[in-house]
Amino acid sequence: MRQSQLFPKTKKDTPKDAQAINHKLLVRGGFIDQLMAGSWTILPLGWRVISKINQVIREEMNATGAQELLMPLMHPKEIWNETGRWDSAAEVMYKLKDTREKEFALSFTHEEIVLDLVRKHLESYSDLPIKVYHFSTKFRNEPRATSGILRGREFLMKDLYSVHETQEDFWKYYEQVSDAYLKVFNRLGFKIIMTEAAGGVFTKNLTREYQVIAPVGEDTVYVCNKCQTGFNKEVFKGTIGDKCPKCGRGTVNENRAIEVGNIFPFDTYYSEKMKVYFTDKAGVKKPVWFGSYGIGITRILGSIVEIFHDDKGIIWPKEVAPFQVHLLQIGNDKKIVSAALKLYQKLNDKGVEVLYDDRTDKTPGEKFMDADLIGIPLRIVVSERSLAKDCVEIKQRNKVKSELVKTSKILSKIV
Amino acid sequence: MRQSQLFPKTKKDTPKDAQAINHKLLVRGGFIDQLMAGSWTILPLGWRVISKINQVIREEMNATGAQELLMPLMHPKEIWNETGRWDSAAEVMYKLKDTREKEFALSFTHEEIVLDLVRKHLESYSDLPIKVYHFSTKFRNEPRATSGILRGREFLMKDLYSVHETQEDFWKYYEQVSDAYLKVFNRLGFKIIMTEAAGGVFTKNLTREYQVIAPVGEDTVYVCNKCQTGFNKEVFKGTIGDKCPKCGRGTVNENRAIEVGNIFPFDTYYSEKMKVYFTDKAGVKKPVWFGSYGIGITRILGSIVEIFHDDKGIIWPKEVAPFQVHLLQIGNDKKIVSAALKLYQKLNDKGVEVLYDDRTDKTPGEKFMDADLIGIPLRIVVSERSLAKDCVEIKQRNKVKSELVKTSKILSKIV
Repeated sequence: MRQSQLFPKTKKDTPKDAQAINHKLLVRGGFIDQLMAGSWTILPLGWRVISKINQVIREEMNATGAQELLMPLMHPKEIWNETGRWDSAAEVMYKLKDTREKEFALSFTHEEIVLDLVRKHLESYSDLPIKVYHFSTKFRNEPRATSGILRGREFLMKDLYSVHETQEDFWKYYEQVSDAYLKVFNRLGFKIIMTEAAGGVFTKNLTREYQVIAPVGEDTVYVCNKCQTGFNKEVFKGTIGDKCPKCGRGTVNENRAIEVGNIFPFDTYYSEKMKVYFTDKAGVKKPVWFGSYGIGITRILGSIVEIFHDDKGIIWPKEVAPFQVHLLQIGNDKKIVSAALKLYQKLNDKGVEVLYDDRTDKTPGEKFMDADLIGIPLRIVVSERSLAKDCVEIKQRNKVKSELVKTSKILSKIV
Repeated sequence: MRQSQLFPKTKKDTPKDAQAINHKLLVRGGFIDQLMAGSWTILPLGWRVISKINQVIREEMNATGAQELLMPLMHPKEIWNETGRWDSAAEVMYKLKDTREKEFALSFTHEEIVLDLVRKHLESYSDLPIKVYHFSTKFRNEPRATSGILRGREFLMKDLYSVHETQEDFWKYYEQVSDAYLKVFNRLGFKIIMTEAAGGVFTKNLTREYQVIAPVGEDTVYVCNKCQTGFNKEVFKGTIGDKCPKCGRGTVNENRAIEVGNIFPFDTYYSEKMKVYFTDKAGVKKPVWFGSYGIGITRILGSIVEIFHDDKGIIWPKEVAPFQVHLLQIGNDKKIVSAALKLYQKLNDKGVEVLYDDRTDKTPGEKFMDADLIGIPLRIVVSERSLAKDCVEIKQRNKVKSELVKTSKILSKIV
């Protein structure tokens, strides 16, 4: 894509109210734009990153045998009443009434909705297990929507739900999803701490959280220096230096962290309340075993920036970079423009995703600054100086040194 | 994918309240499930079709130079007040209040939101044109949510918005998008009538609608038998047999039709109200020229079924079929299972999307009926009879006759 056409332009100034690094860099780079507190437009550059995050997650969810679908966002009160959460989770829910006085909740999660779906289609054990997920919008009435895109009132989430015949089958799949989550976060370049955590408005069971260490994080996690077990604050009631309650050998350190995923074992709690029964092999009616598994998509976008940046801008991991190559045309001489354009077309033909800085009203300094801010993994410069040697200059965003490469060799070097 | 694992199963019975063909077939085939009136879960088979519809549209929108993003669904009252539509469009909007007494509207469209975004990032003529689109959820308080998935209260839409420096540039792009729409509908197999129409709560200008002739359609369109110009009911005040008001030569016929797309020229009406100004080359401040362009995604899903079906089920056009091949294993003999499985793996390896009916508890009759109902373009049968001749039996969903093909030749026949 030609940068001259990209909407919007980068910004020199940091938003006044921005504290978090992800807020500053994602806004300045033109990845996100704030509509109101806790609500963001994902701009074209940001949407390219989100699409890639989604694809990584989709591949790993499909590998567990889960099936993608899409559930509605506006839910009837009656279904939320079946579990009592219309009242008990009222503080996080947005509610509304239509002109016919019918009441609805906006999706803050989908447990009730997926169980309503499942019970309509479930008869016998042969219909189980069922594993379905979607990428969709969540609405949560957060008292404080802070930290850039990390904590929103409207945000994107991948949520997976699974329904099983037996406790054993449930826990087997629970661990399979946990492994899939670690694969996802590994592909995104995250070092994850899994913590035992409290389930909030979701469950009284212990749940598992996937935490990324980062100073901006709102969670406090305690990690054993021997067995690496993590505990979140509600679960670990001690303090730094205490003995690990799991292995009893190590001592526990305190870290700030961002929760990027969580998985919930619900046993048969919700399915009994909602009467989600099936007939087993012996002809006996039983409630299903149920779990849910969430990953915060927009929160991951912000977390990547919190972890992968320097004082000049973002440093995208290759797997989720908005483009693979940032091609800079330095100088507006016919010879330079023609060489840059030729390379742009060649790379496009090879299926390389290129952001081509074809702008003629920017200084070299402005172009280099924008390239560092936007953070595409590989920068290629076509300039008078490089062309004099029949070369282009390439530099990786996370390296300091650049390298001259013969123009004829560039394709074989990067494709 | 193995059909034994597909969620949910097909259904023999038609939903009691179903009138429309798309309602009956999409529910029975397991493509959609009704949460409440006007609100549907898109099930895994349906989601595969939607993803393909989206991809066709995405390719054609990108080809016009438009950029994909994602705007929020919950909007602050203040922005809707700027154009007066908080009140004037109140009948179609869902509104809510949060615990801080702040008021919001759910997205029934995004003109105000995109213009708020644009004015924050727009300075001079060199920032124009801006062309952005998203696939997102729309909420409309429809008095009657009927005709299956054709008219929903919550539904999916692609909406594109464009902002221009001059009237000329706007109209040029308007026609370019119109051409792109015709390409989209052509790829989906639709025969489209473009009609002149009234703009409802959107604009007092004439707009352009893209109509597909279908008996279930809620619109009445008049088409000239000579110049093929179409008019919708609000615009054409005459009756069948009247002389065409455009060419004056032909006479006008009446048809029932489904509106699958529409495009709106707003001139500078909204941008003046919202003060979306830019500085032109001469240094003069001017309001931008603005248009919006919608395609109803879930409505297209339903429309395809209304048009492409027979009394046995759906007949998906190849471009949007949930799978390319439906592989039926007829009989549970080891030899048959092993041959079917081998072919399934071979096709998967070649990147062919296969739904593999591996179910052992279904009769051949049930499998054939399901294949016709689900409507995948190519059916391949592996049976005792076919294997005896070293063959598989292939049949296109829209043909009557099947054909025996040597097992060794099948890949080269269909890949």
